[in-house]
Amino acid sequence: MIIVLRPDSTTEQVDHIVEHIHRLGLKTDVSRGIKRTIIGVIGDEDLVRNAPLRAIPGVEEVVPILKPFKLASREYQAEDSSFDVGFGVKVGGGHLGMIAGPCAIEGREILREIAQSVRASGANILRGGAYKPRTSPYSFQGLGEDGLKLLREVGDELSMPVCTEVMDPRQVELVDQYTDIIQIGARNMQNFNLLSEVGQTKRPVLLKRGMSATVIDLLMSAEYILAGGNKRVILCERGVRSFDNSTRNLLDLSLVPNVKGLSHLPVVVDPSHATGRPALIPPMALAAVAAGADGVHIEVHSCPEKAMSDGPQALLPGQYQQVMDQMRKVAGLFGRQINEPRAPR
Amino acid sequence: MIIVLRPDSTTEQVDHIVEHIHRLGLKTDVSRGIKRTIIGVIGDEDLVRNAPLRAIPGVEEVVPILKPFKLASREYQAEDSSFDVGFGVKVGGGHLGMIAGPCAIEGREILREIAQSVRASGANILRGGAYKPRTSPYSFQGLGEDGLKLLREVGDELSMPVCTEVMDPRQVELVDQYTDIIQIGARNMQNFNLLSEVGQTKRPVLLKRGMSATVIDLLMSAEYILAGGNKRVILCERGVRSFDNSTRNLLDLSLVPNVKGLSHLPVVVDPSHATGRPALIPPMALAAVAAGADGVHIEVHSCPEKAMSDGPQALLPGQYQQVMDQMRKVAGLFGRQINEPRAPR
Amino acid sequence: MIIVLRPDSTTEQVDHIVEHIHRLGLKTDVSRGIKRTIIGVIGDEDLVRNAPLRAIPGVEEVVPILKPFKLASREYQAEDSSFDVGFGVKVGGGHLGMIAGPCAIEGREILREIAQSVRASGANILRGGAYKPRTSPYSFQGLGEDGLKLLREVGDELSMPVCTEVMDPRQVELVDQYTDIIQIGARNMQNFNLLSEVGQTKRPVLLKRGMSATVIDLLMSAEYILAGGNKRVILCERGVRSFDNSTRNLLDLSLVPNVKGLSHLPVVVDPSHATGRPALIPPMALAAVAAGADGVHIEVHSCPEKAMSDGPQALLPGQYQQVMDQMRKVAGLFGRQINEPRAPR
Amino acid sequence: MIIVLRPDSTTEQVDHIVEHIHRLGLKTDVSRGIKRTIIGVIGDEDLVRNAPLRAIPGVEEVVPILKPFKLASREYQAEDSSFDVGFGVKVGGGHLGMIAGPCAIEGREILREIAQSVRASGANILRGGAYKPRTSPYSFQGLGEDGLKLLREVGDELSMPVCTEVMDPRQVELVDQYTDIIQIGARNMQNFNLLSEVGQTKRPVLLKRGMSATVIDLLMSAEYILAGGNKRVILCERGVRSFDNSTRNLLDLSLVPNVKGLSHLPVVVDPSHATGRPALIPPMALAAVAAGADGVHIEVHSCPEKAMSDGPQALLPGQYQQVMDQMRKVAGLFGRQINEPRAPR
Repeated sequence: MIIVLRPDSTTEQVDHIVEHIHRLGLKTDVSRGIKRTIIGVIGDEDLVRNAPLRAIPGVEEVVPILKPFKLASREYQAEDSSFDVGFGVKVGGGHLGMIAGPCAIEGREILREIAQSVRASGANILRGGAYKPRTSPYSFQGLGEDGLKLLREVGDELSMPVCTEVMDPRQVELVDQYTDIIQIGARNMQNFNLLSEVGQTKRPVLLKRGMSATVIDLLMSAEYILAGGNKRVILCERGVRSFDNSTRNLLDLSLVPNVKGLSHLPVVVDPSHATGRPALIPPMALAAVAAGADGVHIEVHSCPEKAMSDGPQALLPGQYQQVMDQMRKVAGLFGRQINEPRAPR
Repeated sequence: MIIVLRPDSTTEQVDHIVEHIHRLGLKTDVSRGIKRTIIGVIGDEDLVRNAPLRAIPGVEEVVPILKPFKLASREYQAEDSSFDVGFGVKVGGGHLGMIAGPCAIEGREILREIAQSVRASGANILRGGAYKPRTSPYSFQGLGEDGLKLLREVGDELSMPVCTEVMDPRQVELVDQYTDIIQIGARNMQNFNLLSEVGQTKRPVLLKRGMSATVIDLLMSAEYILAGGNKRVILCERGVRSFDNSTRNLLDLSLVPNVKGLSHLPVVVDPSHATGRPALIPPMALAAVAAGADGVHIEVHSCPEKAMSDGPQALLPGQYQQVMDQMRKVAGLFGRQINEPRAPR
Repeated sequence: MIIVLRPDSTTEQVDHIVEHIHRLGLKTDVSRGIKRTIIGVIGDEDLVRNAPLRAIPGVEEVVPILKPFKLASREYQAEDSSFDVGFGVKVGGGHLGMIAGPCAIEGREILREIAQSVRASGANILRGGAYKPRTSPYSFQGLGEDGLKLLREVGDELSMPVCTEVMDPRQVELVDQYTDIIQIGARNMQNFNLLSEVGQTKRPVLLKRGMSATVIDLLMSAEYILAGGNKRVILCERGVRSFDNSTRNLLDLSLVPNVKGLSHLPVVVDPSHATGRPALIPPMALAAVAAGADGVHIEVHSCPEKAMSDGPQALLPGQYQQVMDQMRKVAGLFGRQINEPRAPR
Repeated sequence: MIIVLRPDSTTEQVDHIVEHIHRLGLKTDVSRGIKRTIIGVIGDEDLVRNAPLRAIPGVEEVVPILKPFKLASREYQAEDSSFDVGFGVKVGGGHLGMIAGPCAIEGREILREIAQSVRASGANILRGGAYKPRTSPYSFQGLGEDGLKLLREVGDELSMPVCTEVMDPRQVELVDQYTDIIQIGARNMQNFNLLSEVGQTKRPVLLKRGMSATVIDLLMSAEYILAGGNKRVILCERGVRSFDNSTRNLLDLSLVPNVKGLSHLPVVVDPSHATGRPALIPPMALAAVAAGADGVHIEVHSCPEKAMSDGPQALLPGQYQQVMDQMRKVAGLFGRQINEPRAPR
């Protein structure tokens, strides 16, 4: 950490700061330049990270040098994380998690129909929402536990690991009984109590990036889960808020290599929520695989005009099959694989 | 609601859409222009708001005409909401809520010292966090119930209504026992289960705008609380994410008149979290009052360099007194008042 | 165009608006809903596009239906634009323009060395700046005409079309004498006089997206050039401003399919300026090709630490060769080609 | 300047960097921490500001300590700049420039009518555009020199200094003959050749902030003008691009005190372009004065529905008078004055 002093800082102020740092258990290296005095802080940066040094008189700026996350960092673990999310499906380290399914679970028949089609196309993880975060209190909020049961049933029938969102710490225990992967939605990326709660479970977690979260914010939220003891976190880019409303959000594909430089965690991409427009989903899905993503998350519905949530952004099963075929080719070019789920023995 | 068709839409598609709308219980008005056919939907827009019309073949765009919130709207209630938040302090309708106090509750003495000073300067609501949303799992997370007790104690001693944040639906019942105003932080603005839960209480709610929430998003979150039966919602602007990192966030003061055109709810401004820089807080506080805000929320700490959270952005008690004196003058210019809290009879 | 009236609009106001529209030479279709009256405007939308209808009393909102650009639109030309940019190199319609070279032209030897290496790797267009837009008046501003001469010389020697930026309408005539492609930089995307001026030339134009330009803004700027009679415009995505400063800008790859839905113009991607970080350039370059871009623009320098502009974001020649090999494979997967330039006969 | 090395940097790399810095004429202070080695650069930071240090192997990050602008800085000039812009009207140092007038100059009668009304209300600078930057090549582009003549004529008749926009370096000489203040529009804030050109004139310049310019970007653009020898630069905040399209742009009032901490230049606020909505202009104008702005720029039109440009965002003369009365009161509260222009002797 480096402390930059104001041009008008006094010797007393410098001494006060140095003393303050020493009291916190660290060493200092004072460097007096022509226009500015700079104090380098030597030692364990964590001891001072949360100290309000910028509030001390004479301080102009405090520049942290180390990243504030640990367990999520490449320095903590050099090789890519890779783990089984159920039914032998691996995510990370060259294995792609291809997540597909309807936005919301609406009923047994429609869910099974969609699941069968995406499974046949090559998806290896089935998604479906039982608890839906809706901006309006008057919108369909999901089937709740009934939805979870249907999802489990269809997942088991087709030997597919399933993924569903949890919105409330009080739902975690229940959701944990039914799902293979717990999803934290973008709006809850900084719902820290929820993160801590899923950190206590043994389920892989799909953590979606918040709409205005930096890459550091995202990794700090992952750190909450990792710090709870749950090591299986998959990050998910799903677009950030932008000034151009011709797409729902702005897909930030550079997050993929950006995360990979900083962290060992797998990162998947959701072009459905990012673009909100079916015509843009296939090119962005292909781009995601080419950019090195560890998977792609796409919403599929066999009758979008009757979907109870987010219908307009869903691909039709035939469109999904086409983009899956192309994604498989791009992945093959880079030696990456898409495991088929296997029936439990 | 208006449905704009694609230039290549067919007569069959138009008929299909019209039939679809009629089945939903509404009427249509088809207008065939030179380059586009447009279908006006006549009737209760709520019946179709969540129908995925854009997913129907032939549809290019769906343009909603009415706002999706009801109870929060000016159409529902024409006059400004104004209510007592405790100890006779009114917020809204020309009455300003001047909220001040430390970021986090750290101990009895320091809290009382800060509270006495802001009370003497004219603040009429005391704030302090017992549960702190921190981006790092390794940071100080607040004193919890012990903090709540201290806040209540000091509030009662000084006859000040108190305001504190709740982060988890499981904490609502407990927090409700100690506080006068429940705060929902920016990161939880779309934590819908938490909103529903505080909608069940009888406490005024201070709802902070999320870091990338539009004015409509904010009003929809207020609608969640109002729909639960709790009519006393105060909105709070605290800055949005921006590309210029010379301030912590970008204070959007235009939200104040923007909200006032759309809604009857009071709206206060928090220049502390918005700017993150003490030098910018007083001018932005004065600007907030001049813009018509129903109150100003400022963090004050008597020793920022020892604060356990957000010290660098706190004003010193003397700085707060100075800006309060000026805010009072600006408020006076526009005939707005700052009630002093009164001891309970 | 649709005019939405305020809920409190009067019959006189409706009549006034209708009369106003009729005077502009269009027809109206008034539709009185339960909560809102809506006026559909029928006829040539261009006649009213710039009329300040929203300023008329009683009007709440004006919703345009048609896009404001014409010559750039898919409706004007259904098939992809594709054209020769010099030395037989085609861009658009399945032909990729692979643009590479140093940020600034610094001298003959270093330019030739870089040009030879990128040519050998497969680049088919050489870039280099002679006039540099620098945020500081004290930075190196480019070699000017001397730079243009060097660029022409090296381009001719290696049979490569060359591309260089013009910043000032007064430079257009001169630059036009030396270059094959005229580049308009991001900061000048809405320098309308400069756009008009290059619209008068017969050179292909590489038009970079402004840092906060919407897709519509970009197409409107292209329209300025097209309206001048110059039909060979290549659009270029190079990142937009964002809240996360871990990359220089935020690459918006969804612009590629987004533009392709609206326009026939080719669109290339510049991951160098977008990310500003060499480690992120190759994955984003591959993603660009997978997303359907008509080319990729990459800065290459054989000694970045001595570069006079933007060194830190340049790839080394060996890194460029590697990513070109991979881009060629991805392009091949989708049947797209990279023409080799041919010596003039 | 501080150079942070990568955790895996070698001794050879450190030596190479140190030698490199010394060759540039500066000293170094190497500080080896537990996790990172840091090199402090001591001496004139300007010597290395543009050196591509981040491109040197082993470097992770380069942290500048000093600001890159000089002539615009508070360190260069401690007291507020304040100067006469014509007819005895002062801007800066407690004197407010109240700029008002139509968006575009449309004709003599309408201009005179508007000018008389704003002059009577207390405006002390008349604005009007003769060259209009329009996003569409098919929109009204301004009256050109005829407009400049009308503006001069009306300004002289009413003894008001006038302000008009220049878009092209080729227009500067002509515009300079007619106007008192030259305006650089937001879209040209980084049109560096235009900035240099107006830097050669002796006219005060009103420099509008670009739609995604940081405060540093804005001051660097001012530096271009100052470096040319023209010391009279007035900065203007007019809103930045944002994700919420309920306003045209997002007014960043915190720029006012932010600039005042960094620079001696006056800064005015334009709530017309920022909000684009007449209902939001008065509260934002009042807020601007309370925030310490050195003036307010408001578009006024006596018949907005017939305006040839930006009619919907203009205030009516009566609305302007009302907000001017209130702004005068707020300014008075803080001891700031609005000079009346005086007839030339």
